[in-house]
Amino acid sequence: MNQTAEPLVIFTPSGRRGRVAAGTTLLDAARSLGVDIDSVCGGRGICGRCQVQPAEGAFPKHGIESRSDHLSPIGGVEEGYRATSGLAPDRRLSCTAEVRGDVLVDVPPESQVHRQVVRKGIDVRAFEIDPVVRLHYVEVVPPELASPSGDLARLHDALAAEWGLADLETDLHVVRALQPALEAGGYRVTVAVHEGRTITALWPGFHDRAFGVAIDVGSTTIAGHLVNLADGAVLASTGAMNPQIRFGEDLMSRVSYAMLHDGGAGEMTRAVRAALAKLVSGLAGQAGVPAREILELTLVGNPIMHHLVLGIDPVPLGSAPFALATDRAVRTTAAEIGVRAHPGARAYVLPCIAGHVGADTAGVILAEQPHRDAAAVRLVVDVGTNAEIVLGNRDRLLAASSPTGPAFEGAQISAGQRAAPGAIERVRIDRATLEPRFRVIGVDAWSDEPGFSEGVARTGVTGICGSGIVEAIAELFLAGIVTADGIIDGALAVRTPRIVADGRTFSYVLHDGEPRVTITQNDVRAIQLAKAALYAGARLLMDRFGVETVHEIRLAGAFGSQIDPLHAMVLGLIPDADLAHVGSAGNAAGTGALIALLSAASRREIETVVRRVEKVETAVEPRFQEHFVEALAFPHRSAPSTHLARVVDLPAPPPRVGRDPDRRAAQRRRRAAISAAREDR
Amino acid sequence: MNQTAEPLVIFTPSGRRGRVAAGTTLLDAARSLGVDIDSVCGGRGICGRCQVQPAEGAFPKHGIESRSDHLSPIGGVEEGYRATSGLAPDRRLSCTAEVRGDVLVDVPPESQVHRQVVRKGIDVRAFEIDPVVRLHYVEVVPPELASPSGDLARLHDALAAEWGLADLETDLHVVRALQPALEAGGYRVTVAVHEGRTITALWPGFHDRAFGVAIDVGSTTIAGHLVNLADGAVLASTGAMNPQIRFGEDLMSRVSYAMLHDGGAGEMTRAVRAALAKLVSGLAGQAGVPAREILELTLVGNPIMHHLVLGIDPVPLGSAPFALATDRAVRTTAAEIGVRAHPGARAYVLPCIAGHVGADTAGVILAEQPHRDAAAVRLVVDVGTNAEIVLGNRDRLLAASSPTGPAFEGAQISAGQRAAPGAIERVRIDRATLEPRFRVIGVDAWSDEPGFSEGVARTGVTGICGSGIVEAIAELFLAGIVTADGIIDGALAVRTPRIVADGRTFSYVLHDGEPRVTITQNDVRAIQLAKAALYAGARLLMDRFGVETVHEIRLAGAFGSQIDPLHAMVLGLIPDADLAHVGSAGNAAGTGALIALLSAASRREIETVVRRVEKVETAVEPRFQEHFVEALAFPHRSAPSTHLARVVDLPAPPPRVGRDPDRRAAQRRRRAAISAAREDR
Repeated sequence: MNQTAEPLVIFTPSGRRGRVAAGTTLLDAARSLGVDIDSVCGGRGICGRCQVQPAEGAFPKHGIESRSDHLSPIGGVEEGYRATSGLAPDRRLSCTAEVRGDVLVDVPPESQVHRQVVRKGIDVRAFEIDPVVRLHYVEVVPPELASPSGDLARLHDALAAEWGLADLETDLHVVRALQPALEAGGYRVTVAVHEGRTITALWPGFHDRAFGVAIDVGSTTIAGHLVNLADGAVLASTGAMNPQIRFGEDLMSRVSYAMLHDGGAGEMTRAVRAALAKLVSGLAGQAGVPAREILELTLVGNPIMHHLVLGIDPVPLGSAPFALATDRAVRTTAAEIGVRAHPGARAYVLPCIAGHVGADTAGVILAEQPHRDAAAVRLVVDVGTNAEIVLGNRDRLLAASSPTGPAFEGAQISAGQRAAPGAIERVRIDRATLEPRFRVIGVDAWSDEPGFSEGVARTGVTGICGSGIVEAIAELFLAGIVTADGIIDGALAVRTPRIVADGRTFSYVLHDGEPRVTITQNDVRAIQLAKAALYAGARLLMDRFGVETVHEIRLAGAFGSQIDPLHAMVLGLIPDADLAHVGSAGNAAGTGALIALLSAASRREIETVVRRVEKVETAVEPRFQEHFVEALAFPHRSAPSTHLARVVDLPAPPPRVGRDPDRRAAQRRRRAAISAAREDR
Repeated sequence: MNQTAEPLVIFTPSGRRGRVAAGTTLLDAARSLGVDIDSVCGGRGICGRCQVQPAEGAFPKHGIESRSDHLSPIGGVEEGYRATSGLAPDRRLSCTAEVRGDVLVDVPPESQVHRQVVRKGIDVRAFEIDPVVRLHYVEVVPPELASPSGDLARLHDALAAEWGLADLETDLHVVRALQPALEAGGYRVTVAVHEGRTITALWPGFHDRAFGVAIDVGSTTIAGHLVNLADGAVLASTGAMNPQIRFGEDLMSRVSYAMLHDGGAGEMTRAVRAALAKLVSGLAGQAGVPAREILELTLVGNPIMHHLVLGIDPVPLGSAPFALATDRAVRTTAAEIGVRAHPGARAYVLPCIAGHVGADTAGVILAEQPHRDAAAVRLVVDVGTNAEIVLGNRDRLLAASSPTGPAFEGAQISAGQRAAPGAIERVRIDRATLEPRFRVIGVDAWSDEPGFSEGVARTGVTGICGSGIVEAIAELFLAGIVTADGIIDGALAVRTPRIVADGRTFSYVLHDGEPRVTITQNDVRAIQLAKAALYAGARLLMDRFGVETVHEIRLAGAFGSQIDPLHAMVLGLIPDADLAHVGSAGNAAGTGALIALLSAASRREIETVVRRVEKVETAVEPRFQEHFVEALAFPHRSAPSTHLARVVDLPAPPPRVGRDPDRRAAQRRRRAAISAAREDR
């Protein structure tokens, strides 16, 4: 046995190595070598977070012969942990295993403080946990008459001695809870330290549960995830309607409500906070976690949601210069925004970017990280009632917001509804027969496949959601039923009974049931306006950046992540691009909130990045109107659809307005068309 | 005219001097030379805080010939200030006066940020203001579409550029108030910055009023001063009963209430907070200051008051080891302790020292500064329901608390009352006739002087307050009516009808009116117990320090500062000392709160000093009981009253217990006497 006074210890995967005095615990060895091993109990064999896996054998590459018997044998503390909590036979608790000879020790991912989080199911970059809240178990010296210092001072002494935590501040509620906790825990307590600076929670004895909730406050829906702060596991996810809807469907109508009603902003603040509180308690219930164990919240939202959640009057956001009260990240408490959680729970609201580009966009950037792309120019579009658009790469990042309106979310659509069981979400229309087939949410089979009737017997066909309406209109366009100018061609009524007159215009009957699901001329107009706004915003940023094409497009948001890239491109929602490079980013804003929940480093990152984002204000950019007008047609007129043409037979395009000898006259005609379209609705 | 490119500027009283570029304002010159000149408006000629007084003539001592015309003539801004706010002819606004030639300039005290505060009327050391809250007027760049940063970011930029304030945090309520204030003030606002770190308040335009309240929370009474934070002027002072009295007269009965009643501590917390709120709003009304302009509170109090105000359960303070939840200074908000003030108002609670020695004692130390005495050993006694005792000098400081009970405050005394108009406060008894004469609060004349009847017709003679009872018993002792063992000698009833039988004991009739004011045997016993506790505590600290005498005695507290040192020494409340060195410290605890309100430096000072105070726990010191027994007699037996004997004829002392051949037996007898005294009550 190669025992020396100073055995060699090598940790993988970091490869850090060094000699330590024989008898040093692996945990202490790791700390002295700068190896990242987790621990809550501070080396007392209670928490089991510090598990490592010693290797056995010769490792010429590392220049070591490692033997598991070069560690002290399993002692009483570790035996106890094995018996009560279980430990794989090849694992050791690094806080009890002492080095007696050369060893090679692997630190498994789950034992690292800064472990990687890989989100399954959705296509999001892995990121590293950098805990905002850390738990520390300590043993406090009991008070004595001879040394009558306060219990808090002795707690601080213990935290400094055991964890190197100096100059901590302490919440007053923690001071209040201190003596009962010390008594109940026999002077052993666990504290939560927030940002390495403040003691925000306290439990008697050993406690290793701490949770957080990441919330995306949308104008229409609010979505939240409850997460284990230690390992990033999502334990519950849920969504709810934003009850502010009763004050106005879209953002501007809510600002108007605040403008026209005394105390209107306050009403909306109360409404959204009540919804947040309900969402969080619902998540806690769903995850089986007491709300009191929730220690951290993060929030994203557009500027108006951001202001209303924080109780700031959003009225200045309703008119130029669209000044935010603050574009900095806001650190506050859960209690301050009306959420019942642990009394020390903090809330972190991501920074905003500009008056129309909010903390939700900051979340999208954090999730998608376009600012880390070396060269490729990426377009990230988060489609909601507004579309937030980010374009750029490592060198330069632009952002804008486009007023798409709620059509993509199924609002202002005759048979529109939220994406929920029973909603038509996919549509195909036969180019020859003009007959449709479709799929509804909650049923696996298409409408022309076996099993559809049985499935639909459960869900019904209740309407059509955003992704369904986009596919339906794209398919109608590809089938020649809708013209490039967006007219449902009544002449085709001779070929199919599905085209029916509807006053002065025509509709297409997608499903003749109860309710009847039709695509009306108004529906086409609403989608035209929405998609033109979206496209024009993206196009504006491309102009600014100086590119004609982008390398990659990411579609985010409840709607954005559901639509089929092909159909989105057929309709001209997005610029032409290689379809292989167009993908879904899921709810990227919410993912950004989740990352910020788990990583202090990511907070610093986004706070830095947003300061260098170039903001583009669509509302006052003359070119936005131009692009908008150009983009009303299907797919759009302002750029050749080369990639698209390769994968789908497009109807012949209408004459390009841009080449009209009298461009201004043509634009006047287009504007008249828009007015007509708007009046139609 | 001695004009050079770089004229010489000398500031007095600091004597700082240097050359500055011609055209530099005096304010900028002062800053560059490290001279302390106040300013709120940042050099815009609005606030008038930066007034200076240029000198005219030759000053050989300073080596300068100074001429007032070496400054730029009075311009429009200064003219405007003179017209609206007034400015002495020989004064200039240093922010507008530019240096053109050599000048000697005096900075008057009121123009210094760190000005000295000299409290009139009470004998407290002068101290220097070191503002905790500072006001800063700034002009914020209005928002523009082209640079859509948040208003808060632009406010921070302005504060950094104009005032060098970087990395400020901002209260959320300030963020909420920001846009309306910017609008109302035309992008000119004044902010309050707390501890150089946090923006806690905001006003549109120029604002230069900021107030604070210093509060002493006693078990029986709560006292407060409302202060102008800029110059330390006390604008209102008031006192109120502590409504917790209904839960128990003394501290231990309040702890018992908390122990015996579920939620009892919470009830007491609500009661005292309601009283604080009322006190503060009363002070604001009295001073004619809106409560919203109160930005800072400081609080002192004994440990149990400290805990109850902060909502901490005081029960652990009721039994050994008397552990404080915290002995550190507590920084919280006015709202947290239920006081309505500015929403950003902070509250600072001075640190405690030990389980029985609280923030009130920290206040006493801050006011009296025994820790700065080079050599002389000082005894500071704050007499309330408990006596806090501090002894020491620069090298060493000891502190203890003695359970005197409420007798000194007039409670448990047959005709006792608080010090209020109508209360007998001074007493003399003729050694020959045994007839008394006295003075009552609110009447200047003694009872045997002309004008007394007229005065008393207004106030009545309503009872006797603490200082009155002490003088009465001391005079009765000096007249031989009360023996050294504290017995009212019934045999003297033959000499005066004022001595009357009262059951098995005798009383002395001080005032035969309605009500009748008598000194009963029980009254003497109550004072005996109280003074013995006080003396024993002081004596214990002297033992520990290793001194037999002290150089100076300071008596603090509502009672302490009213009693006559001679009578206090006759009764043996305090150790024997040169009467010339025994003085009143006023309400030193409250003065300490006042100093902490005005000086951040003093907060740092007391936080450091309390950590090195040696705490002495009277409850478990065996020698405390010994000293207590020794001290029951008048004046006391444990030390020769050499100074006292020089100024007053003392009755022959009883035999010294300390020389009793059977000391233990003697002590047993004494203890029996105490029990008897206690049963008498």
